[in-house]
Amino acid sequence: MLIKNCDFVVTQNKEREILRNCDVKIRNDKIIEIGENLDGDVLIDGKSKALLPGLINCHTHLAMTFLRGYADDMEVNEWLQKKIWPMESKLTKEKVYEGSLLGCKEMIRSGTTCFNDMYLFMNETARAVEKSGLRAVLCSVYFDFTKEDIFSDEFNLVDKFKKHDRIKFVFGPHAPYSCSKELLIKSREFMDGNKCGAHIHVAESKKEIEDLKKKYGKSPVELLNEIDFLNDRVLMAHGIWLSDEDIEIIKEKKVKLAHCPVSNMKLASGVMRLFDLWKNGIVVGLGTDGCASNNNLDMFEEMKFAALLHKIDKMDSTVAKAQEVFDMATLKGAEALNMEKEIGSIEIGKKADLITLNLEDYNMKPVHDIVSNIVYSANGGNVNDVIVNGKVLMKDKLINKFN
Amino acid sequence: MLIKNCDFVVTQNKEREILRNCDVKIRNDKIIEIGENLDGDVLIDGKSKALLPGLINCHTHLAMTFLRGYADDMEVNEWLQKKIWPMESKLTKEKVYEGSLLGCKEMIRSGTTCFNDMYLFMNETARAVEKSGLRAVLCSVYFDFTKEDIFSDEFNLVDKFKKHDRIKFVFGPHAPYSCSKELLIKSREFMDGNKCGAHIHVAESKKEIEDLKKKYGKSPVELLNEIDFLNDRVLMAHGIWLSDEDIEIIKEKKVKLAHCPVSNMKLASGVMRLFDLWKNGIVVGLGTDGCASNNNLDMFEEMKFAALLHKIDKMDSTVAKAQEVFDMATLKGAEALNMEKEIGSIEIGKKADLITLNLEDYNMKPVHDIVSNIVYSANGGNVNDVIVNGKVLMKDKLINKFN
Repeated sequence: MLIKNCDFVVTQNKEREILRNCDVKIRNDKIIEIGENLDGDVLIDGKSKALLPGLINCHTHLAMTFLRGYADDMEVNEWLQKKIWPMESKLTKEKVYEGSLLGCKEMIRSGTTCFNDMYLFMNETARAVEKSGLRAVLCSVYFDFTKEDIFSDEFNLVDKFKKHDRIKFVFGPHAPYSCSKELLIKSREFMDGNKCGAHIHVAESKKEIEDLKKKYGKSPVELLNEIDFLNDRVLMAHGIWLSDEDIEIIKEKKVKLAHCPVSNMKLASGVMRLFDLWKNGIVVGLGTDGCASNNNLDMFEEMKFAALLHKIDKMDSTVAKAQEVFDMATLKGAEALNMEKEIGSIEIGKKADLITLNLEDYNMKPVHDIVSNIVYSANGGNVNDVIVNGKVLMKDKLINKFN
Repeated sequence: MLIKNCDFVVTQNKEREILRNCDVKIRNDKIIEIGENLDGDVLIDGKSKALLPGLINCHTHLAMTFLRGYADDMEVNEWLQKKIWPMESKLTKEKVYEGSLLGCKEMIRSGTTCFNDMYLFMNETARAVEKSGLRAVLCSVYFDFTKEDIFSDEFNLVDKFKKHDRIKFVFGPHAPYSCSKELLIKSREFMDGNKCGAHIHVAESKKEIEDLKKKYGKSPVELLNEIDFLNDRVLMAHGIWLSDEDIEIIKEKKVKLAHCPVSNMKLASGVMRLFDLWKNGIVVGLGTDGCASNNNLDMFEEMKFAALLHKIDKMDSTVAKAQEVFDMATLKGAEALNMEKEIGSIEIGKKADLITLNLEDYNMKPVHDIVSNIVYSANGGNVNDVIVNGKVLMKDKLINKFN
């Protein structure tokens, strides 16, 4: 099967090659050949299109699409306590399934092919992901007050999906301020036994740091390090309020980060120390966060916000360059999820997780620099076709029906 | 002619009423009735749609679509001197016409119905606007080095379009740092005689302020005030580096401002003192700036950037609320262009400049708060239909052909 005669193939390989008038051949779930004039059946006509690796959203709460626009422009604690948590306390399996389905559709429509999600009733989200054809790393979030047995396979679902080709489950302790030290230690023991990763909120707000300093005399990163929680299978969402010592620990333990600029701006959480993290070789992916604090799942928008937030924050228009930001949404996202051997670039042997952008759309014309157009001009609506695991999920802006 | 049975009519009238299941009747170029079960031919079916006033883009350089993605992530003076100006020095009438046509198409596609533009060869932009059906305030930009006779009708075009129903010309001195005091004085005299407004860049960069202080011992606003340039027909683009004294002058002289958050972030120009301007009752519209520094013309994206930039800048998630930002893109934009009697809201007697958003698009679901969805969830791709001056320019996301 061929994606034939693409105007641009933005490979995101080591050399960041951009190929012109090029075909990409896939067999089953994999990319098997890249070049000109390849033989095979045409799956997608690449004329007037740019082919990119599918975008990777490193921090979401998918089912929260149902809370889109439910509460905005509020102080964050009031927002959580008066609006979000009361609504979530009434959450049902049905609501989570419905919200997850909508989220899957929105992600396909806007070119995300893999995402890292944390929420409640995750069996329902997994059902939606399974039907949708997307790839995902999921986890059932838990807090001190969680009543279910966190370590049962029914709750954490790690074992149940061990052999799934598109879905993987990791552990989901909500945050060091909402999970006790004991709970985190138990989690770490379980994760070690299962060689399972974790997805956790860390250092999102200044208040969190102050509260933990009071309680433990440590930062959240120091606390997690003390109990030996940290390793290269741990992904921290947000990671805004990090000290130099925290960054040193993150570097040493090879912890991954998910940067969520839109959510961080909308909730006025703060600005991640992106360049200090990069300087230390730390892997930073990009995420939208949930629709209650974004309020969409558009990774193209997220890229533009990432680039522009750091330029204005540093008062330097040369930082957070288009290529660097595009890397966060592809290659670095794959690394953040420990999937860099499978996804994140268009290379032989990698999974066929691919999207095209329609270059006939007015906001995509002309193309002086395709990476610039991807990061600074495009939005999710410019995505024309989506392939995940070798299967076409959207063609000509129409997604396959699933429910 | 009716827009029939809209799920939402977001009127932007004084009470900011949002009407449900409502019709809007238009005759020729005007809105003549708003209510339920009105009689008439159905022009647009409003089911699953939100009807809004067309968005107003208060600062653009339309033809610069041809420079989209041509140069990014550079220091601003290097960017101008090495990339933008050399390219512009080779500018032709044909290039301006072509770029303007593309820009018109992009604006219609993304829901802008009126814009305020400044560039070269403006007769060509006017030709494109005329064909496109859009509404615009245009001006021929000039600098000290401009060779043409600025005061000839051929150049400034103010007289030529005096009776046009959709196009108005004002004066376009580039900025107080690129036009001498003498040139600005002459411009003011001409404008007084013609009762003509002006569109001018002011206080975009810190360097500009320092340079002018050195040259004149005054800020750009003080300089313009000294020569009696300022009145309610003057619109200043950017207005970032304003002193308290500048704000006092702007308030007193009822000068209007165009806020361009995306461009200001991308070029790392600075953050406008939006709340100080609002506190003083100063009218602030919203603009995308040109495609060389944005790199698109999407006013939905611009609204989200405006809201989020000021939240993170003030570290306060309650400021720059959705309704306030939506006002900037509609009502306040109309005021900034002195067109508040004609456009900016859905009210009887106003021009039929209207757009619909498709509420079936995944990123628009569900609707808890339509204004939140407009500002925080939507992008230009969600625009379904566009009407300007009573004429349908786009239906079901397909724009009328024109060239």
